[in-house]
Amino acid sequence: MRASKYHINTLKEAPAEAEVTSHQLMTRAGMIRKIAGGIYTYMPLGLRVLKKIEAIVREEMDRAGAVELLMPLVQPAELWEESGRWTAYGPELLRIKDRHQRDFVLQPTSEEVITDIARNEIQSWRQLPVNFYHIQTKFRDERRPRFGLMRGREFTMKDAYSFDRSEEAAQASYDNMYDAYMKIFTRLGLEFRAVAADTGSIGGSRSHEFQVIANTGEDLIVYNPQSQYAANIELADAPCLIATRSPAGKAMAKVATPNMTKCEEVAALLKRPLSDTVKAVVLAVEPTEEIKTVQIFVLLVRGDHELNEVKAGKLPGLNQGFRFATDDEIKRTFGCSPGSLGPVAPVGPVTIIADKTVANMHDFICGANEDGFHLDGVNWGRDLPEPDLVTDLRNVVAGDLDPNGGTLNIQRGIEVGHIFFLGDKYSKALNATFLDTDGKPAIMQMGCYGIGISRIAAAAIEQNHDDRGMIWPEAIAPFQVVICPLNAHKSETVRNTAEQLYQDLISYGADVIIDDRDIRPGVMFAEWELIGVPVRVTVGDRGLKEGVVEIQHRRQPEAEKITVAQATDFVLEQLKLRAHAT
Amino acid sequence: MRASKYHINTLKEAPAEAEVTSHQLMTRAGMIRKIAGGIYTYMPLGLRVLKKIEAIVREEMDRAGAVELLMPLVQPAELWEESGRWTAYGPELLRIKDRHQRDFVLQPTSEEVITDIARNEIQSWRQLPVNFYHIQTKFRDERRPRFGLMRGREFTMKDAYSFDRSEEAAQASYDNMYDAYMKIFTRLGLEFRAVAADTGSIGGSRSHEFQVIANTGEDLIVYNPQSQYAANIELADAPCLIATRSPAGKAMAKVATPNMTKCEEVAALLKRPLSDTVKAVVLAVEPTEEIKTVQIFVLLVRGDHELNEVKAGKLPGLNQGFRFATDDEIKRTFGCSPGSLGPVAPVGPVTIIADKTVANMHDFICGANEDGFHLDGVNWGRDLPEPDLVTDLRNVVAGDLDPNGGTLNIQRGIEVGHIFFLGDKYSKALNATFLDTDGKPAIMQMGCYGIGISRIAAAAIEQNHDDRGMIWPEAIAPFQVVICPLNAHKSETVRNTAEQLYQDLISYGADVIIDDRDIRPGVMFAEWELIGVPVRVTVGDRGLKEGVVEIQHRRQPEAEKITVAQATDFVLEQLKLRAHAT
Repeated sequence: MRASKYHINTLKEAPAEAEVTSHQLMTRAGMIRKIAGGIYTYMPLGLRVLKKIEAIVREEMDRAGAVELLMPLVQPAELWEESGRWTAYGPELLRIKDRHQRDFVLQPTSEEVITDIARNEIQSWRQLPVNFYHIQTKFRDERRPRFGLMRGREFTMKDAYSFDRSEEAAQASYDNMYDAYMKIFTRLGLEFRAVAADTGSIGGSRSHEFQVIANTGEDLIVYNPQSQYAANIELADAPCLIATRSPAGKAMAKVATPNMTKCEEVAALLKRPLSDTVKAVVLAVEPTEEIKTVQIFVLLVRGDHELNEVKAGKLPGLNQGFRFATDDEIKRTFGCSPGSLGPVAPVGPVTIIADKTVANMHDFICGANEDGFHLDGVNWGRDLPEPDLVTDLRNVVAGDLDPNGGTLNIQRGIEVGHIFFLGDKYSKALNATFLDTDGKPAIMQMGCYGIGISRIAAAAIEQNHDDRGMIWPEAIAPFQVVICPLNAHKSETVRNTAEQLYQDLISYGADVIIDDRDIRPGVMFAEWELIGVPVRVTVGDRGLKEGVVEIQHRRQPEAEKITVAQATDFVLEQLKLRAHAT
Repeated sequence: MRASKYHINTLKEAPAEAEVTSHQLMTRAGMIRKIAGGIYTYMPLGLRVLKKIEAIVREEMDRAGAVELLMPLVQPAELWEESGRWTAYGPELLRIKDRHQRDFVLQPTSEEVITDIARNEIQSWRQLPVNFYHIQTKFRDERRPRFGLMRGREFTMKDAYSFDRSEEAAQASYDNMYDAYMKIFTRLGLEFRAVAADTGSIGGSRSHEFQVIANTGEDLIVYNPQSQYAANIELADAPCLIATRSPAGKAMAKVATPNMTKCEEVAALLKRPLSDTVKAVVLAVEPTEEIKTVQIFVLLVRGDHELNEVKAGKLPGLNQGFRFATDDEIKRTFGCSPGSLGPVAPVGPVTIIADKTVANMHDFICGANEDGFHLDGVNWGRDLPEPDLVTDLRNVVAGDLDPNGGTLNIQRGIEVGHIFFLGDKYSKALNATFLDTDGKPAIMQMGCYGIGISRIAAAAIEQNHDDRGMIWPEAIAPFQVVICPLNAHKSETVRNTAEQLYQDLISYGADVIIDDRDIRPGVMFAEWELIGVPVRVTVGDRGLKEGVVEIQHRRQPEAEKITVAQATDFVLEQLKLRAHAT
């Protein structure tokens, strides 16, 4: 490729709304252009990255025995009504009407369509197993799209769906996809982790996320450096930090804590460690057919811990949905404002759920249910009844012990892949049956497997960049090599040497661009460093007098002088290197 | 590929709604599955064809210097308001609202977005010319989607848009795309014609369609077998068939033609050739600011000719839109019903426009403006005033003389590509300027170039099929070769020979599938003939005893016996052949 024929248009400044590095750099490098909130045009350089990611994903999916098809973007509402998601999905599902006022959706995902296809196409166990995948534009009408490609509305995904005869066979399909994903993310050249994950609204019973490690990631990953263990913090079990409860050592006393609403403030005032305090979070559950009033739940975690809402959402009483209690409800139930409430003697009826560690605390500090006061020396059984439920309620913190040995650590990640064992959730709703070996109809067992193609591009940048710009892994760089002839218009030798190198590298299959735009060397270098092409070959008159060109890997601080004769080999060797080992 | 791992599911019967061959065969072969009117899932075999078409289009577009990007499917209404198409486009434009009640469209085409990109990205003449293309899902909310992929609602298109400094440069870009299209359709292996075409609602001043020749095509192509001339009948000039008008030979006479409303009936009654009759078509133009009443136009073509509405739509008075007159308007203007009207002495005011041939007729027959009567021996100047306008109004008919020599012929075609010289239609509306060499802003000159990727698949079938199924051109066949081992479960020799051939062909880069499904030979053959794989290699015990396999090209009536040793070479040779030369 010649830069003069390729559309390259970099910007000095990123738009003010670009909050994250990948959004800033992709915009500055001219890889994406916003057309509406969360909707972008992929400019040539950006699409090139996308296509390379797609190609790797496609190759590994094919190798794993999955079969590609293409489901439509516009899908009839009927199928979504059959699965129940027409009403359940919420406003992220873009609902549309055609000219005949029939309802359609713009697909955010395609479980319904593929299950419909499976029930129509698959009659016999002989046609199973099968794993269909497609790479398609998807749309989710995010309330607040942001972070560029990280949380857009229109995006590209690979989605695969497996159909099997039995749960056991479906688990094998799941494992097969797990292995394919490991290969895909390794080939992409990204540092990543497969982590056990919550199944969320998709449902099913087993799930892994594939997380690209990056400090700017929205997800927290709990992992054990001494073992294979890794889980999303939403799911990771937190140990009980106090093996047995000690007997009460103090009398309960009310202390004045004027204007103090945080555990940190109260602990500082009382000169006590934060781990002596208990934090209460009040949740409300709306009335149901059976229970006609709003129910109030108090969830207790230690002052230095955080409530894990996903764990809370699985508890009896809370697993049909909850919200945070309003100030009014808190006033009514505890007789005070939120900053002073506690589990001791509330005014109204509450269910008290304590984290395992909290349940074994003694002489602890909590709100007094009176504005401006807290209680010290509180003890279970003596000052308040035992909790209604004791369970794991908190997020893991770095340093927590892994019950299987070693210590847990935490890092941030960006979710780029997610696999789910669905079982019969969709196949039952849509009655997707096949005739089994015994001649009787049986429900298919399903799995679904997503990869955020466009999000991977953003995640790769979040993980790989410096103050000069992006640093692409070789496998997905828009170009692997850029040849920069300096002041080429003044020197035929420079032009000829650069052209020869260009032709040589192409003949060896390298993906190379030559910058024939005749711009100033400083501008040229800055542009290619921003764009993040892994290997740069600089051809200049000064070097050629010594018989050398300068070759610099984007990750290296300095260029190396290499003879013209050795240059092609040197570049090819550099491209074989993986910059990051996982 | 092994058939057992690939999802192949053929049907005995096509759905009743499938009116055309391609729709029937693609459905029967399991290439597409309908999910809603005009919306299909591309099943694995179908997607494979689509991907092959895409790859050829992409390669030739890249080779022609076009640069690929990807514009979004969901586009903000603002841009469409700027171009005026938000209101002008009609109900085929699917308009949607997001969760914030903002207006969007699902792109049917992307002139607005690309012009927006050009005006933002291109500042200087140094960045021109540029030709951006994308291959994307598009959506047109057809009132009556039908014919499968031929006229779907959701479909795949390649759209390219060129931007140039001057009209001259833009014409060169147009010619470059014309050449690229010739290469693309030649490589696709289809019999096609590039034909001069009308610019229609897209606008602009120069246009060619690329038509796949097929008897079932909706378009009529006028061509001269002795020259390069080819044009859509909408555009093709029709010659005047009577060089000079002869003097009147008869007096005008009213003849009774009870219940006869067609020229054919009247000519038969009077025992005269159809070419002695004149057909009148009455058009109406709605009132405007200037002309406050409905205007009536009478368009006259010879009885054996057809009115060309596209030509009519370009005439003064009619070029802002027209409709057919209602029966009431006709009664009011002519004093009779439609079957008896004529240009002689209408009751109300009319504009009379005569085809060139009609203007030179004498002693002709037309309606008498009295129900059940016609006039014979009508002559211009004597019986009625000369026409208000004489022009080319009719469709060419086979046998018309080409003024440049030779005779015109007509064939049917399916439009699969269309290129337009747009000039400044969109760039002016969206103010897409650049700084020219003189430092002054100038408007960019545009062209746009579409290819219907999914429609090509259907057109290829309309052109290439027989009563057993599809016959794919080698370049876009889902597989080039199928190996059919007969009763493989009973014979290790059959299995081994088939497997060896399979591996050999793969190693030479052939796209081959081996049918390892262990089904009856008759069923297997019928399925692959339906699917239309170009070359079939049959490996059976009987043949192997003689040391041969049977190789049959889908277009040949008989298989050839080829020794096992020569089989691979033979197949590779067959694949180099193009079945159709254009």
